[in-house]
Amino acid sequence: MDEIAAVEQLLERCRLASADASDVVVGVGDDAAVVALSGRVVVSIDTVVDGVHADLAASSLDDFGWRAMTTAVSDLAAMGVRPVGVVVAVVAPILDCLAELYDGVLAAARDLNAPVIGGDVVRGPIWSVTVTAIGDDDGRGVLRRNGARPGDTLFVTGPLGAAAVGLRALRSGGDEAATLAHRRPLARLREGRAARDGGASAMCDCSDGLSLDLDRLARASGVGIALDAVPIAAGATLEDALGGGDDYELIIATPQPHELEAAFAEAECRPPIRIGSATTDPSQRTLGGAPLPLRGWRH
Amino acid sequence: MDEIAAVEQLLERCRLASADASDVVVGVGDDAAVVALSGRVVVSIDTVVDGVHADLAASSLDDFGWRAMTTAVSDLAAMGVRPVGVVVAVVAPILDCLAELYDGVLAAARDLNAPVIGGDVVRGPIWSVTVTAIGDDDGRGVLRRNGARPGDTLFVTGPLGAAAVGLRALRSGGDEAATLAHRRPLARLREGRAARDGGASAMCDCSDGLSLDLDRLARASGVGIALDAVPIAAGATLEDALGGGDDYELIIATPQPHELEAAFAEAECRPPIRIGSATTDPSQRTLGGAPLPLRGWRH
Repeated sequence: MDEIAAVEQLLERCRLASADASDVVVGVGDDAAVVALSGRVVVSIDTVVDGVHADLAASSLDDFGWRAMTTAVSDLAAMGVRPVGVVVAVVAPILDCLAELYDGVLAAARDLNAPVIGGDVVRGPIWSVTVTAIGDDDGRGVLRRNGARPGDTLFVTGPLGAAAVGLRALRSGGDEAATLAHRRPLARLREGRAARDGGASAMCDCSDGLSLDLDRLARASGVGIALDAVPIAAGATLEDALGGGDDYELIIATPQPHELEAAFAEAECRPPIRIGSATTDPSQRTLGGAPLPLRGWRH
Repeated sequence: MDEIAAVEQLLERCRLASADASDVVVGVGDDAAVVALSGRVVVSIDTVVDGVHADLAASSLDDFGWRAMTTAVSDLAAMGVRPVGVVVAVVAPILDCLAELYDGVLAAARDLNAPVIGGDVVRGPIWSVTVTAIGDDDGRGVLRRNGARPGDTLFVTGPLGAAAVGLRALRSGGDEAATLAHRRPLARLREGRAARDGGASAMCDCSDGLSLDLDRLARASGVGIALDAVPIAAGATLEDALGGGDDYELIIATPQPHELEAAFAEAECRPPIRIGSATTDPSQRTLGGAPLPLRGWRH
């Protein structure tokens, strides 16, 4: 297919998919996209590169597109805001395969309620996808990672290590269902907003592994960390849970644990899981009283 | 230098550089950035790849960073809005050279009044920079490319082909000043807002060459194009002016040419240059009555 025609077809698919997004004033096809917001704009950018964040020899282009979307939109979840759209820039060695990549991008866009409102396609030697997620705080503010205080209870939104299990299943030819948490991770958007509205003090996602992301939250907040227990996904090890990365569950600190649980129930989210508390000594990092190893995914 | 330290140092530079940006509520360092807008959000994304948009064997990393910024922010100029910030994702083969790339990014950010409010740094086999520019229409609307009507006068904001001349100078070892239009192109932000406020009907930038970008504006608007003359930059050929690309001047259509000129004078911009008019026959593409060749830069 003619390259211009291939890109035109993509534009048309993005246009159709976002046709009913009422805040989108100008979508794909002009110099820039325009969105009407009700509050402040929240912006996050992430790049995934073949061979770094995924191995396209082992996984498919549509999964690669999905993961690029989740990675960026998860950062909006971690601020407690809703997405209003994404812009997507693709470096593609083969334009003929763009449609497959966009199958994953558009499936995630539908799932996340984050329409593709603009983009760029460039030829280059290796596949990479950059997604900028645009969110709206609806005037209700955002939840930063620097607000945790000593005594706050720490939660995660789900068991950890599932993505690491999925990656092993993919590499060993395991069954389809087992690979899903790695191939099609989910951003915890509803949980993020429930946490913001339920009085939490700090939040971040744990896409780089619980141990590393918790360390960042603790540093930003100037608190220590005392974990009691870590919820481990089926088939995962403690090592997977602490350092596996790519899980996209949220880490939440709150001075009001019961209100957080109530807010999650109200929003019909899975109950948040208590893992420990923030402490006064900013150098403390413990799990069950023993030192918590600092490991995780540094790109 | 330790890689984490290198990235931390960049974050600190971005933080310092945007410290006085009063709309920026949350800058670099959290999961996402937050900006307070007075109107609608305008978003554009562009990727530049080594070997595709620039040859790093012939030019420097700081120029590469500058050009990535101009490419993205020019799209805001082309909508007639002001930037409030950018997020920058870099794929870097060598993290040690990130500081040089960011010299160019931050110099452009200062020049464009577009602070770096977030980003991502990823290791990868080849240099590429993706910039998402975030703009604010201040409630005054945007200027799209689809609004030109038959009879509208067409303008450009400056002579064309300067970037092509600069590229030749760079390749032949020409003097520093001659290479500037290629290495450090400018986004026409003031001109873009003057056009919006001066009653223009359509606008786009001509980063891909006058001929190709004018064709896009004409198709989007359903009009034909009759050019009388094309302003050619010093040292450039007509070919450079029509198809050279990378010039980032704006193409403007307006039913009120005198008001546009007055708005430019009011805003202390260089006077816009008349090049022709939009016509009724949507298939017309002429220059001085002869067919206008369709050439330009398709990535």
